[in-house]
Amino acid sequence: MTSSRRAKVLSWLLGLDLIGESVLIEGYEVDVEGVKKWIRENEVKRVLVQAPPGLRGVRRKLIDEISGELDMVFVHGGGCWGGCDLAVAHAKAVGADAIIHLGHARFLEKSPIPTFYLECRKTDPAPILAALEKSAKILQGHHKIGVGVTIQWQDSLSPVRKKLEEYGVEALTGPPIPPLRYESQVLGCGYEPLLRLSEEVECYLIVGSKFHGLGLALQTEKTVYSLDPELQRLDDLSAEVEKLLRSRYGYIEMFRRADEVGVVVSVKPGQYRMGAAVKLRETLRKAGKRAEILIMDDVEVNLLRDSGFEGFVNMACPRLSIEDQQALDKPLLLPMEALIAVGAAEWGEVIRTPRYFLMEV
Amino acid sequence: MTSSRRAKVLSWLLGLDLIGESVLIEGYEVDVEGVKKWIRENEVKRVLVQAPPGLRGVRRKLIDEISGELDMVFVHGGGCWGGCDLAVAHAKAVGADAIIHLGHARFLEKSPIPTFYLECRKTDPAPILAALEKSAKILQGHHKIGVGVTIQWQDSLSPVRKKLEEYGVEALTGPPIPPLRYESQVLGCGYEPLLRLSEEVECYLIVGSKFHGLGLALQTEKTVYSLDPELQRLDDLSAEVEKLLRSRYGYIEMFRRADEVGVVVSVKPGQYRMGAAVKLRETLRKAGKRAEILIMDDVEVNLLRDSGFEGFVNMACPRLSIEDQQALDKPLLLPMEALIAVGAAEWGEVIRTPRYFLMEV
Repeated sequence: MTSSRRAKVLSWLLGLDLIGESVLIEGYEVDVEGVKKWIRENEVKRVLVQAPPGLRGVRRKLIDEISGELDMVFVHGGGCWGGCDLAVAHAKAVGADAIIHLGHARFLEKSPIPTFYLECRKTDPAPILAALEKSAKILQGHHKIGVGVTIQWQDSLSPVRKKLEEYGVEALTGPPIPPLRYESQVLGCGYEPLLRLSEEVECYLIVGSKFHGLGLALQTEKTVYSLDPELQRLDDLSAEVEKLLRSRYGYIEMFRRADEVGVVVSVKPGQYRMGAAVKLRETLRKAGKRAEILIMDDVEVNLLRDSGFEGFVNMACPRLSIEDQQALDKPLLLPMEALIAVGAAEWGEVIRTPRYFLMEV
Repeated sequence: MTSSRRAKVLSWLLGLDLIGESVLIEGYEVDVEGVKKWIRENEVKRVLVQAPPGLRGVRRKLIDEISGELDMVFVHGGGCWGGCDLAVAHAKAVGADAIIHLGHARFLEKSPIPTFYLECRKTDPAPILAALEKSAKILQGHHKIGVGVTIQWQDSLSPVRKKLEEYGVEALTGPPIPPLRYESQVLGCGYEPLLRLSEEVECYLIVGSKFHGLGLALQTEKTVYSLDPELQRLDDLSAEVEKLLRSRYGYIEMFRRADEVGVVVSVKPGQYRMGAAVKLRETLRKAGKRAEILIMDDVEVNLLRDSGFEGFVNMACPRLSIEDQQALDKPLLLPMEALIAVGAAEWGEVIRTPRYFLMEV
């Protein structure tokens, strides 16, 4: 029996639908055959499987499918917040010889351990089209919109473009620029292809979630709309980004008054920015602060709160400063915000520009 | 200038008191000279400093003292919950060549990376003696008490013994048994020397905190008193342990009904119990559960809650099952409790015996 035929029989036995070589699990197209082939070709024996919260069901079915080919399958119990968040240290610690990382497109060109980025794409664009239809009026005033999609909606880019054309709106997309792999793909921290369209478009539409829209809205003065197919919502993020920026300014002020601060470096291979952190520590010390480099894996608010520092600069994932700040009563600044705090950059020149998320100093 | 003399001058400059070769920082005797000597002898260049929450001030002063001898000092921003909790993976990830671990006695005989366990002992037994005096009546009915102390109160063992003798109470102590390094030293998970006194003593007194007393009370039917010098409290833990055990039984019942469970293995070198976890996974599978091994570093309740499993067996630090359970709405069982859940051990034969905390199956 060929591996493809075996896959078909297995899929049928497990109640999975087949799409070419991929199978459909909970509405996601998943290249299980590709994983198996990779396991065999790389002679993988012990694998660590990493999956974000929304893909627990996919993880379970994947494990059912591949367990027979492996000596050991471990489930990673830590975070999985992006393709940058590879559990390399954990994999090495348990003697795994490879990682299967679900839900994100390849992020690291070279991983320190063989890694299969298993994309999980939604096959049905209906929720997007329905949400667009409900909110057509909002978009109909525009002629040219820059459209971005998260990886799970990548295959819906064409239907979205067509739908917008029905409303007389031209959808502009950006070419892939590493670490982004696909046309108009966006990450919570990566919007470069869309930002380059800035001169041509009137506004942006990000298909994914408010989270993904907000990341762009902090880096551009154009209006950003987010379309969340799960929640069936299309939102103009302008008010939210203004409110957020006022709050950020308050945290910068708080950081200014802090004496002892930590520059947080995560050991996650895609977030490890030691060079910039060491430079920033020097800048902060010259500005009179007692600054140390703080090493973490997951940057946990509880650990920060308890660490004895009065403020932090986050050199790990920029979104931590945006999403986790509310849960912490101490500032958790972006590198650029820290430079603003010590007078080395200007607030007005940084916000709503691509520099705002720059993880370098 | 000799290193000892230089230390004296430095200490004087920094406003620290010298006790022999050690310095007094915030009431703790700290062997700063020992650290420096070790740094030189091992040609340490890049060090990761790990400290528990109570020792942030000591950490800061230590860094001031040693920075001049090193190319790079990193502060560890993760947990530091015991001598078992060595940040080896983080140290390796940032290219540190050694760890300085504050506040715990040496736990690992051989660490995968050179590690200095820097004990921080309280020099003044006054808070203990004052608390004992306040609560003398509670103890005076007893003739023989087994006494345990946490490492920071190690030097107070003699004054405690004398004080008890004043009340006509004989204090029995246990010899060090690895991983315990000192007479009558206790850890949150380690009480073997005291448990061996079981036939001879009427009850136990643990100097440290309720946390430390409770760990013993779960493993013996004798009354355990905890004495907390900071809070100036002496408590009989009998009622608390009974209440706790009733709640544990409830979680065992909940686990019994769970279909999909995770056996949690931490990558922390002193908590890594993969062999036992693999055996337990088999036992659980034979009992009809879908069991997977879940790899974590810090075992975070948020991550467990979000992991897609209905219940957990904790193969990391036994105290997680006791201290963190309340924050989680799913059972986080000890290995022995999991065996009880599947009928491979008896509740009544395990609780309040040394088997209860056994991290083997």
